[in-house]
Amino acid sequence: MTPTAATLDARDPLAPIRAKFHIPDGLIYLDGNSLGMMPVHVPERVQRAMTLEWGTDLIRSWNTHDWIDLPVRVGAQIARLIGAQDNEVIACDSISVNLFKLLSAALKLRPDRTVIVSDIDNFPTDLYIAQGINAMLSGKYELRFVKRDQLEAAITDDVAVVMLTEVDYRTGERLDMKSLTERAHAVGALTIWDLAHSAGAFPVELNACNADFAVGCGYKYLNGGPGSPAFLMVAERNQSAALPVLSGWMGHAAPFAFDPNYAPDAGVRRLTAGTPAVLGMTALSAALEVFDGVDMHALRVKSLALTDLFMELMHSLETEYGFELVTPTDHAARGSQVSYTHPHGYAVMQALIDAKVIGDFRAPEIVRFGFTPLYTNFADVATAVQRLETVMQSGAYLEPRFAQKSKVT
Amino acid sequence: MTPTAATLDARDPLAPIRAKFHIPDGLIYLDGNSLGMMPVHVPERVQRAMTLEWGTDLIRSWNTHDWIDLPVRVGAQIARLIGAQDNEVIACDSISVNLFKLLSAALKLRPDRTVIVSDIDNFPTDLYIAQGINAMLSGKYELRFVKRDQLEAAITDDVAVVMLTEVDYRTGERLDMKSLTERAHAVGALTIWDLAHSAGAFPVELNACNADFAVGCGYKYLNGGPGSPAFLMVAERNQSAALPVLSGWMGHAAPFAFDPNYAPDAGVRRLTAGTPAVLGMTALSAALEVFDGVDMHALRVKSLALTDLFMELMHSLETEYGFELVTPTDHAARGSQVSYTHPHGYAVMQALIDAKVIGDFRAPEIVRFGFTPLYTNFADVATAVQRLETVMQSGAYLEPRFAQKSKVT
Repeated sequence: MTPTAATLDARDPLAPIRAKFHIPDGLIYLDGNSLGMMPVHVPERVQRAMTLEWGTDLIRSWNTHDWIDLPVRVGAQIARLIGAQDNEVIACDSISVNLFKLLSAALKLRPDRTVIVSDIDNFPTDLYIAQGINAMLSGKYELRFVKRDQLEAAITDDVAVVMLTEVDYRTGERLDMKSLTERAHAVGALTIWDLAHSAGAFPVELNACNADFAVGCGYKYLNGGPGSPAFLMVAERNQSAALPVLSGWMGHAAPFAFDPNYAPDAGVRRLTAGTPAVLGMTALSAALEVFDGVDMHALRVKSLALTDLFMELMHSLETEYGFELVTPTDHAARGSQVSYTHPHGYAVMQALIDAKVIGDFRAPEIVRFGFTPLYTNFADVATAVQRLETVMQSGAYLEPRFAQKSKVT
Repeated sequence: MTPTAATLDARDPLAPIRAKFHIPDGLIYLDGNSLGMMPVHVPERVQRAMTLEWGTDLIRSWNTHDWIDLPVRVGAQIARLIGAQDNEVIACDSISVNLFKLLSAALKLRPDRTVIVSDIDNFPTDLYIAQGINAMLSGKYELRFVKRDQLEAAITDDVAVVMLTEVDYRTGERLDMKSLTERAHAVGALTIWDLAHSAGAFPVELNACNADFAVGCGYKYLNGGPGSPAFLMVAERNQSAALPVLSGWMGHAAPFAFDPNYAPDAGVRRLTAGTPAVLGMTALSAALEVFDGVDMHALRVKSLALTDLFMELMHSLETEYGFELVTPTDHAARGSQVSYTHPHGYAVMQALIDAKVIGDFRAPEIVRFGFTPLYTNFADVATAVQRLETVMQSGAYLEPRFAQKSKVT
């Protein structure tokens, strides 16, 4: 017999961490894969960065509060979570900007090759960045964007870079980073992994997979706050060869020498560009402290138990109300979210949000539920399914107000 | 006879605005050209964005608090200050990233031309970005970086883009935006103006000068906080033709359609890339409210009076202690800062900071003093010069501790 949600919560070694987050009364939040919840101590830390560091210490804070090293310090906080060395990760800019930096640098490392491989179902910004770089280079590259089952075959010896997102933002499917990286390396290509739906969701194994480059998001499973700085990773072996073309002054070997000629920093710092976003960095750095002492393998165990329970409880709703599971049931092929298609997906999600269970919707008809092991508990899972059942039984989702689309869906 | 500082303060129509800033006791802050002071209401606004918008309303805030439109809303707040239309400006990313976006787009608009002109004394990041773009394009361009007095001659009919900073970060010299833009247009080139030391310091006249593109800083005279988002401007006439190569999803015509093919937004929004930095945007937006109702011409009058007074009071120190003025005395050729060379520039500035007058130092031997008309008053100017005189008279700056360089100078 399956244990009850209460039993599972009682046994959960990560349960105490939930108290570190601000959880609005009565709200079940299954959207941490879009915007992570707020750790309760973050506002005080940002407040201090404003009133003391900015307001009072002013410009001196670049030294006294070491603002200048924020990208490398926050990067080092992230490194352990993604299986990289401290000196391989920096926090900066957005995923889009960081992908541009890494893809342009990686292509220069394979000058005689003319193909960029990606997954046609990759998050659009990843594809757009490749399209933008190719437009800048007057269409030099073949953009080989293929369905997932054609990826292996697409990685041929004319490929410069294989650029993939580890976990699909719609279906929650997790790709095999190790085998795809091996496949890329076997033909001499480089890899860029987008960890938007991986970092903080489970132990990522960049070094163990021999990954070359990676980017990831600060505001999803890392809980860094809305529009938080992103991060990027460059494997140590690639650092000296990877030349930034988005070559801003903060990546210079000696920014305060104000030399008119660009010369990159020796390490990963060369991939910073402008002045670090101190307030956003402060929030992200504080939020990352929630991971201190967390065993990432225990986190994965809980994540899988949460998504297993959700799938199991949803099973009876699938046939009854027309949901179709699009997330793999195989653990190895799953991130930390579960998605279903439903012909009224948008309205169903709006009605569910009205019933205080927040997930989200992705066009054309996917409802997504994200499970953040640090604060989602098993009771949340059970209650969410109950409320969804009520929404479907009552037909509440058919009310016209739930069909009205917002700017952001 | 010159009026006293007290008289000038008593007559200053902008004097009441100083109370809107947090001014640490006894501190004279002449470094708003590096990091603007904190308006007192900003922390509460950022706190609200954290606890209410992020913490409680969570993902719904993209719609209910209109996070999604922050780049255009904050851009519109800046537009008036720089003489642009509301629909020509967005707040986003850093100056380095925004320069990359605009220079790459502008070069595509002049495909048959092969020269980029800039000022060899431009802020280094501007030059580095041109160098990076040129490296990406395999050295297609001649980077014609010349001394300021050779700019006119350098703008020939093979020039694609003239990229200049309106006010020199070291000397405070203000270039003639109107005549240089005319000169560029006369040969068919486009212009990109960097307003880092202009926006908020005096009324910039982008539209009146017929400027094509511009970037600027949120954390200097706009007081948006450390590492605040920057801004960019694209003249309406160039918007449909300027194609972003740093083509992130937020610049797509329909970001939430999740189309795998990039198609730019119709307007300036196409030059956004990733998710807006909500905390930084909130701080900048709140800070910009200080400009509400401020007559930018009155601001300029006060700025010139402040810098005039400083130069006048410094006059006796120049010969006595070996300072050499490098800022133009001509009003039309001056921004809102005054700089001197001094053979012990670094140590002099450290000793002055120790005496609670904060300016800054730029290699090799420049001491800079920035005057922000919103909060600097005439008494600050007089006291700063008195304290500098004490530092020089006493020889305090010769103490070894003041020669020790920090990471950030």
